[in-house]
Amino acid sequence: MSITMDPITHRQNETDMDNARKRTSVHVEKLTWFLYNGRDKWLQKHKIEQVLSKDPIFDKTRRPFETRTERFNSGARITNRIFELQESLGWTEEETSIAEFIIGEPLPISLHNTAFSPVLLTLSSRSLLSSNSLSLLTKHHGIHGAYLQTELGHGTNVSSLETTATYLPSTKEFDLHSPTLSSTKWWVGALGKTATHGVVQAKLILPGGRDMGPHLFLVQLRSLEDHKLLPGITTGDVGPKAFGGYAPTDNGFARFNHVRIPKRQMLSKFADVTDEGKYVKPPHAKLNYSGMVYIRAGLVSNCAWLMAKAATISIRYATVRRQGTKGPDGLEVPIINYPSVYVRLLPILSRAYVFLELARNMTTSYNAMSNRLSSGDTSLVAELHATTSGLKILGTTHCIQDLETARRSMGGHGYSAFSGLANLYADYVPSVTFEGENYVLDQQTVRAALKAFRDITSGNTPLSSLQPSNHYLRLLVSEQIPPIINPISLTTDPATLILLLEWRAAALVKDLASMLKRNSAATGSDGSTPQSVEDATVYQRVSKAVTEAFIAGQLGKMLQDLDLESNPKGRRLKEDQKLGEKELRMIKKLYTLYLLSTIESSLADFLAFDLLRMSDADNSTSDAVFILRRTIAEICSELLPEAIGLTDAFGFSDWELNSALGRYDGRVYQTLWEKAQMEPLNQKEVPDAYEESIKPMLLRGRRQAMSVARGAKL
Amino acid sequence: MSITMDPITHRQNETDMDNARKRTSVHVEKLTWFLYNGRDKWLQKHKIEQVLSKDPIFDKTRRPFETRTERFNSGARITNRIFELQESLGWTEEETSIAEFIIGEPLPISLHNTAFSPVLLTLSSRSLLSSNSLSLLTKHHGIHGAYLQTELGHGTNVSSLETTATYLPSTKEFDLHSPTLSSTKWWVGALGKTATHGVVQAKLILPGGRDMGPHLFLVQLRSLEDHKLLPGITTGDVGPKAFGGYAPTDNGFARFNHVRIPKRQMLSKFADVTDEGKYVKPPHAKLNYSGMVYIRAGLVSNCAWLMAKAATISIRYATVRRQGTKGPDGLEVPIINYPSVYVRLLPILSRAYVFLELARNMTTSYNAMSNRLSSGDTSLVAELHATTSGLKILGTTHCIQDLETARRSMGGHGYSAFSGLANLYADYVPSVTFEGENYVLDQQTVRAALKAFRDITSGNTPLSSLQPSNHYLRLLVSEQIPPIINPISLTTDPATLILLLEWRAAALVKDLASMLKRNSAATGSDGSTPQSVEDATVYQRVSKAVTEAFIAGQLGKMLQDLDLESNPKGRRLKEDQKLGEKELRMIKKLYTLYLLSTIESSLADFLAFDLLRMSDADNSTSDAVFILRRTIAEICSELLPEAIGLTDAFGFSDWELNSALGRYDGRVYQTLWEKAQMEPLNQKEVPDAYEESIKPMLLRGRRQAMSVARGAKL
Repeated sequence: MSITMDPITHRQNETDMDNARKRTSVHVEKLTWFLYNGRDKWLQKHKIEQVLSKDPIFDKTRRPFETRTERFNSGARITNRIFELQESLGWTEEETSIAEFIIGEPLPISLHNTAFSPVLLTLSSRSLLSSNSLSLLTKHHGIHGAYLQTELGHGTNVSSLETTATYLPSTKEFDLHSPTLSSTKWWVGALGKTATHGVVQAKLILPGGRDMGPHLFLVQLRSLEDHKLLPGITTGDVGPKAFGGYAPTDNGFARFNHVRIPKRQMLSKFADVTDEGKYVKPPHAKLNYSGMVYIRAGLVSNCAWLMAKAATISIRYATVRRQGTKGPDGLEVPIINYPSVYVRLLPILSRAYVFLELARNMTTSYNAMSNRLSSGDTSLVAELHATTSGLKILGTTHCIQDLETARRSMGGHGYSAFSGLANLYADYVPSVTFEGENYVLDQQTVRAALKAFRDITSGNTPLSSLQPSNHYLRLLVSEQIPPIINPISLTTDPATLILLLEWRAAALVKDLASMLKRNSAATGSDGSTPQSVEDATVYQRVSKAVTEAFIAGQLGKMLQDLDLESNPKGRRLKEDQKLGEKELRMIKKLYTLYLLSTIESSLADFLAFDLLRMSDADNSTSDAVFILRRTIAEICSELLPEAIGLTDAFGFSDWELNSALGRYDGRVYQTLWEKAQMEPLNQKEVPDAYEESIKPMLLRGRRQAMSVARGAKL
Repeated sequence: MSITMDPITHRQNETDMDNARKRTSVHVEKLTWFLYNGRDKWLQKHKIEQVLSKDPIFDKTRRPFETRTERFNSGARITNRIFELQESLGWTEEETSIAEFIIGEPLPISLHNTAFSPVLLTLSSRSLLSSNSLSLLTKHHGIHGAYLQTELGHGTNVSSLETTATYLPSTKEFDLHSPTLSSTKWWVGALGKTATHGVVQAKLILPGGRDMGPHLFLVQLRSLEDHKLLPGITTGDVGPKAFGGYAPTDNGFARFNHVRIPKRQMLSKFADVTDEGKYVKPPHAKLNYSGMVYIRAGLVSNCAWLMAKAATISIRYATVRRQGTKGPDGLEVPIINYPSVYVRLLPILSRAYVFLELARNMTTSYNAMSNRLSSGDTSLVAELHATTSGLKILGTTHCIQDLETARRSMGGHGYSAFSGLANLYADYVPSVTFEGENYVLDQQTVRAALKAFRDITSGNTPLSSLQPSNHYLRLLVSEQIPPIINPISLTTDPATLILLLEWRAAALVKDLASMLKRNSAATGSDGSTPQSVEDATVYQRVSKAVTEAFIAGQLGKMLQDLDLESNPKGRRLKEDQKLGEKELRMIKKLYTLYLLSTIESSLADFLAFDLLRMSDADNSTSDAVFILRRTIAEICSELLPEAIGLTDAFGFSDWELNSALGRYDGRVYQTLWEKAQMEPLNQKEVPDAYEESIKPMLLRGRRQAMSVARGAKL
């Protein structure tokens, strides 16, 4: 029996949301155009969403009830339908990827697009790409690829991979083999059940047993006739993932039992083997970076939109959820009004605004780098590699944390799968470990910072050579001293906050450099790796400080750009789409809140280096800390009346958010009720478990109780 | 086709684990007896586990593959089997709850045991309990109860619940009703499909419409004949939970449509209604606390064991996972050897040791309180209420965070459901919001601290009246000054660390009190709630500081007790079970590490109040911070060779942990391989999705590619 009762409608939620929306004074649409980089882009997304949201194949409401296998099946169905629509509606590549993004499912096809395809197209020889129309098949998804790097025993450290590709001059073939259990390819997206082809990282072994280290090889995995595995190849799914995450993707394993592939299937654009088995060296080794930069730029953009979702859902829920003290109207207070709630949620909102702009800047920089690269100019690669590493760490760390903070801020109902946040956490939490484990990336960021520090302080490099990523180092060679903060102007003086974040990075890098110097003097080691550092978490802190200084610098420029937006020279938006004074003021407030909460969250750094000095001479350190926190609460309370408008501006539809608690109209209780009715357990009044287990338990209990009762009566 | 390939065995993992175990110098069994409070207790658990682990009904390996409904069904099966075994093996209540604990499934029966049963037995009238053998049926699970408090619209704030129980003098009945959608009972464990009875929180409405606020009523929900819902009652499951957590429990909803219950079903031990409808007041209102104290003591113990699991799994994995730099043996370094890894994991280990002891102390205190209460002495209630609130917040917060830290430390493989940690996070993350939302509890802890502060500084209360929960306040009325730290003895001088934590609590409470005084002088408000506090997160920080000072004080006593253990006056363990010198030294190191890392994690507090002063006069603040962190790394590296022994001591079997990565023998790759073969998707070589979706996509792609290729050739 399904429950059919029609619940009593409860209008308070809707009234609360209406009123909150009326309080908003910003022009929401203009903010939306700003966030989407123009009205055209926004309309493009909106149009695609109209198509998707009407198509039952993209229905999101059944997802929480589907098994892993059903999620995999519907993922395949979604993928097929996307390409059907691409063809019938004539979508461009860009429009297709917008569709994939809005659907929000981790699909196996994304591994084909972001890993297999770029690696194959960039690193294959011309002849391989043209044979059998390989590049066209790849582009049009006539084959489905996987990128086989990680093994059971090795991940980030590519040089230790164990899979071998032994060259056999007699037949001009490679023998691809998995010699050990730990050499089994593992975690590879789309490898388990979907992929027909793979690019495999394997140690190239030349005649005589010479090990040339990891190289890439194209391997067909499954028959294009019937999708059966080709001889010598074993693949499968690695099983369910933490929190039920990434369910539609068949992260898989593969083992190769002496699989022969023709020599031309080595991806030989840069490194090759002659027919006789001689190695031909790659001309330069660093070109791979540009792909990583591209993927990381995409990750930062994803993270920014996730923060936006976290902020939208939690702020909407907190606006209609009433709890605690009763106000003059006899109603309890909406929880968004509690300082302890809004000082948790508004910084997430501010981060979303900041990271959306940062992601856009990164895309612009990536395009500039690509343009230069195409004419052989690698001058921008190092800088972009450094900044994207740092932003990837900070972006993924924040976004994962913000999703949980937002979910938990919703109390009990936040634990419902219908909140729409837990599934995002489940799908995105691995981003803190993939595409360069954050800890490994930390080291890269810090090494680049130390190198720049040594260059600049040795006097060998002019100040003018400083890049945005290490611009803060100028402070160490100038006559400046750290700024004294005027408590009165803390909310209106982002320049000082930016300077503080730069000083903190400078202080931490300088301190680390001298610590490493002391160490190497004492131990003779070069002190370049954290293993030899006594303070084991220092790299993480320095990397964070350096990246936050970079972001602060970028924010300074973004604030300048905002002033341009408001006058006729503003360069990005068309005249009628330009932000008004009010919207500009709000965005500046959001940026300032970002700066303030960034400082607050690393307070120990600022205090350790005595960087939090207020102009009032009487102030003790604890007073300075108090003033900083009070200022955060103040700026939050100023943003509060605009919070609903500022989240509406992200332009999420209810269909896209798929959250009972983040409903646009505030009808959260009605929606929780309706969604609960879909639960499979509710389709029967008496559950199947009753006859088998519950009844025997109750009967036993009754028998025991009666026997005791009789005993007692005797 | 299932994959049958026999993978090549890889022995390195096992060798690594063997060697690590050989390096351990502590007497693991003695530590186990210590942690379990005696060899008898340990053997009792072990014996029960032997029974469970051989019974296929308790098999844990299929859980990751089961649907929500299957998890519910197997949960019911497990419950029935537990009571079958209880009867056939003659288990005591204690042994039965040990069995439930080891099984580790969140079962609906636990709500009967921890909520329904104590509330019913404590608050019902004698006549209700004896009618129809109600208390015996409750005790023997002849009925299954749920505790219906939370509603869609209200949780913690009981006074705003909307469900009504209107007394009808004409028939001597209550009319139980759900007047609005938001009054629907929601989230109630076991309510959806299992419970036959419920205790319902509802507003008592007396004749004339007088609203007496929330009271408790017993209601039968389902027929004991066929488990069908009784007239006027609608129940159902609220749907899936975040991260797939709590799957076996049917957290449910209920609506009452003018359901009549006889007057004696009001739980009237303390508050009652006369036949005519007059209210009879409860004698005193605070007795409920003791139940909360008991539940919280249980939560802290759970949390401690979860920290122990997090430490065991992650430390074992890190011991056999090799990555990065190659050592002299040609093998990469085990990741546990990286400072950045062990300074994340060993503090978790130390917290587990500390919280296991704290939980035991709480149980002792709870028993003392119960004894006094039974003779009407309520003198211990307030103190235990205060300390358990704080410990509940700190314990749940740490344990949830530690589970994720441990999982993420395992990199890519940590994202496998087979890691055995994600499911624990999914099941336990709601503990930060239930049994008193941590934020609400923070306020209670802080209010108690402020009251004690005012009492003691006003001079009206003697120092001797200070309880363990506010013993740190003595510092504010003595002539003492904060200690100067000798960097040399940081690792061997826990007394100074304890004093530092106490000074920090004293400084924060004093600071908050004067801030509130300023506020109330300025605004006229009494400043007792955080709404009126400009620094919105201050309550959280103060609560943490106060609880950590309490724990520090307890640790001081625990360290004294350890000295007793080693000499003949040791009072807890039998002579032959006593810890030796080595084990005592290790436990002291673990406690010291706990103290150091607690200070480090709240560094901003210590710096803001200038509490981190080292005896070397030249030291700057940043040097003091550096020395503190170096000391943590040092003590971690001293503990490192014993880490496997210290985790083995928790006494988890592979069956109990159910983790591919936390295997006792280190065979992690073999186990990941074997578990992956169980994945349902792997039971067919070609997935079902191929014909329906993958094939059409590939064919379309090939057609498009060919058409472009032909076009290109023209």
